[in-house]
Amino acid sequence: MSLREEALHMHQVNQGKLEIHAKVEVKNAQDLSLAYSPGVAEPCKEIFGNPEAVYDFTMKGNMVGLVTNGTSVLGLGNIGAAASLPVMEGKAILLKSFAGVDAFPIALNTADEDKIVETVKLMAPTFGAIHLEDIAAPYCFEIEERLKQELDIPVFHDDQHGTAIVTLAGLVNALKLVNKEMKDLKIVINGAGASGIAVAKLLFSSGVINMILCDTKGAIYTGRPVGMNPTKESVATFTNGENEKGSLRDAIRGADVFIGVSVADTLTKEMVQTMNKDAIIFALANPVPEISPAEAKEAGAMIVGTGRSDFPNQVNNVLAFPGVFRGALDVRAMTINEAMKKAAAEAIAGLIAESELNEEYIIPSPFDQRVAPAVAAAVARTAMETNVARIQVDPEQVRMKTMKLATIRN
Amino acid sequence: MSLREEALHMHQVNQGKLEIHAKVEVKNAQDLSLAYSPGVAEPCKEIFGNPEAVYDFTMKGNMVGLVTNGTSVLGLGNIGAAASLPVMEGKAILLKSFAGVDAFPIALNTADEDKIVETVKLMAPTFGAIHLEDIAAPYCFEIEERLKQELDIPVFHDDQHGTAIVTLAGLVNALKLVNKEMKDLKIVINGAGASGIAVAKLLFSSGVINMILCDTKGAIYTGRPVGMNPTKESVATFTNGENEKGSLRDAIRGADVFIGVSVADTLTKEMVQTMNKDAIIFALANPVPEISPAEAKEAGAMIVGTGRSDFPNQVNNVLAFPGVFRGALDVRAMTINEAMKKAAAEAIAGLIAESELNEEYIIPSPFDQRVAPAVAAAVARTAMETNVARIQVDPEQVRMKTMKLATIRN
Repeated sequence: MSLREEALHMHQVNQGKLEIHAKVEVKNAQDLSLAYSPGVAEPCKEIFGNPEAVYDFTMKGNMVGLVTNGTSVLGLGNIGAAASLPVMEGKAILLKSFAGVDAFPIALNTADEDKIVETVKLMAPTFGAIHLEDIAAPYCFEIEERLKQELDIPVFHDDQHGTAIVTLAGLVNALKLVNKEMKDLKIVINGAGASGIAVAKLLFSSGVINMILCDTKGAIYTGRPVGMNPTKESVATFTNGENEKGSLRDAIRGADVFIGVSVADTLTKEMVQTMNKDAIIFALANPVPEISPAEAKEAGAMIVGTGRSDFPNQVNNVLAFPGVFRGALDVRAMTINEAMKKAAAEAIAGLIAESELNEEYIIPSPFDQRVAPAVAAAVARTAMETNVARIQVDPEQVRMKTMKLATIRN
Repeated sequence: MSLREEALHMHQVNQGKLEIHAKVEVKNAQDLSLAYSPGVAEPCKEIFGNPEAVYDFTMKGNMVGLVTNGTSVLGLGNIGAAASLPVMEGKAILLKSFAGVDAFPIALNTADEDKIVETVKLMAPTFGAIHLEDIAAPYCFEIEERLKQELDIPVFHDDQHGTAIVTLAGLVNALKLVNKEMKDLKIVINGAGASGIAVAKLLFSSGVINMILCDTKGAIYTGRPVGMNPTKESVATFTNGENEKGSLRDAIRGADVFIGVSVADTLTKEMVQTMNKDAIIFALANPVPEISPAEAKEAGAMIVGTGRSDFPNQVNNVLAFPGVFRGALDVRAMTINEAMKKAAAEAIAGLIAESELNEEYIIPSPFDQRVAPAVAAAVARTAMETNVARIQVDPEQVRMKTMKLATIRN
């Protein structure tokens, strides 16, 4: 069977990938009197009297709402809510398998920003956190920002922050090998969609000063007359300090790091040859990267990462989001802030000992069982340190619990 | 431990009652490539090309959205969305345990009718059916009606139709014992909330001609100057044909059947004494019925049903909704119509053989394992007969499948 046939068969024979499981059995009248009427009135009354008790007596504390509208699904683009469901179910089983997090897909049949915000706000009581997924830029930014303002549970757009966290993790380790520091780098990011913007923001808050973000119109700078939007204008305030104009080819000259979150084959060997010594390249376009690792190396790059599992240094969001949600849920976090994202990146990077670190091993494997537990513990600890946790827990307990709940194998 | 302590403990130790279960494992990169990228793109493309394929490749076909806003929860009243979650999770595990139906609670933080309708419409792609629950009358009627008009999946408000179906089932069997027919009955219904209205409608479409609906202001009739709403006006067009005015005490004189969906102790022995010979009483107020079975019998009633498990003839919605949803989902029904509800009632009634039938056994036990399978088969058959099924199935297969999926024990 081809991959296509096998994938279709697997989805069809199971009628999707998710089901609802009862944690308590209802076999007889006694069970019924506890799980349903009349016993169920007791936890209801507790929550009515003390809203925080919803975390104690319901599924909310372990339940993530996986919200999409299907406008930017994988490499498929705007395929709509219903057609995005297989991806959403897939994401849910990743959260479950990697970190024991329950997640339920909500595929919204609208492209209206206000309606998405309103809907998620209305349904928030059910969920301990909201995972936004595959919503097109630029209005994914506005949706996330508004929801973060209005909700008291974490809101995390994975296309933005998952990629940003894992890219930062890879960069942290790459810098150890080339012996450079964040503050001294020149970084060029190609692609100003959800992940490009988020990468720029997280790198900025991690100490990168010299950064140019490019899109199809070239370098982004304040007041550029074409192809701008409020998000790009906002990014232009902390990137491209010299207001350089020109194409990617111009911008990349002398860069230490290239991060591609764009499309296939946008980076040439000639461009790589103009980069600084010990160049670091993350060519994350999927399935075909901005430049192949072989070509990048031939052109002089020292370290190359991609989004693919068949090359070294895979930047895969699954290294981040399961642990991020596990950690956030376990402290009943009110938000996921920049410090928690940075802590997640540091935790991922820190799993590779300096002695193991090499050009082809700066990022752990997606199936490294240590990753989600380490991320969860770091995120929980940082949430408490930054006062966005509702409860205090021992991060080591979070790590152990995550390890126990995960069902992946090395 | 008291029931209260035991119920709180059970909910807390499990952190609620529902979890998400992955039907396919993701243990390694090969699993990931099928359940997620790149394989997952294949079912997405199939659905994008053919919207009906969403039933083949996703969880939708077995997934019910359990929608509430917590405005009318059990006997607790308007406790809000979050506090209603234990009940919603309970309902979900009943659907799962009795009929293998997956259901997920969506507790909406609003009392605004338009917002509820809009939200459910937007999230409909995820679900094969919508189960409305514990939404206060009278706007539950309008919400259900509008959603039925606008969605191509079944919308079923259990507080209305669950009660109506089981009450009709009980009445069908009770009439066999007293040897009366629907068309000859005088029925008084006390309570014009969600279930009272629905009982009246289902009885009307089952051939009952002489019916008076009462609320706290007494008999409802066209143009009554106080305490009316559009739903009551609409019910008044097919009930109380003589436009009788007066109290419940006046209305019940000469009635063959009393159906109480109101509050404790509203029916007195004196009122029962004024009823027709072989009176049938369903006193469904919970936990304290409109009249106790003992008192009703002393006053001359022949058959008494209540909502309680510790008296004979329990009218319990769980006899209806799991099988109704199972049958509707299995034919990918577009709606749940009156014929399907009547078929469900007939199926429940039909499980008691004439030889077994007696005054204390007109309704099967909630844990009778034959019920949900019989209801599912009848609902599936009737959906096909009334042309609201997207696919044709063998009702006997539906019965067998339901039996296999159910986990309750007699």
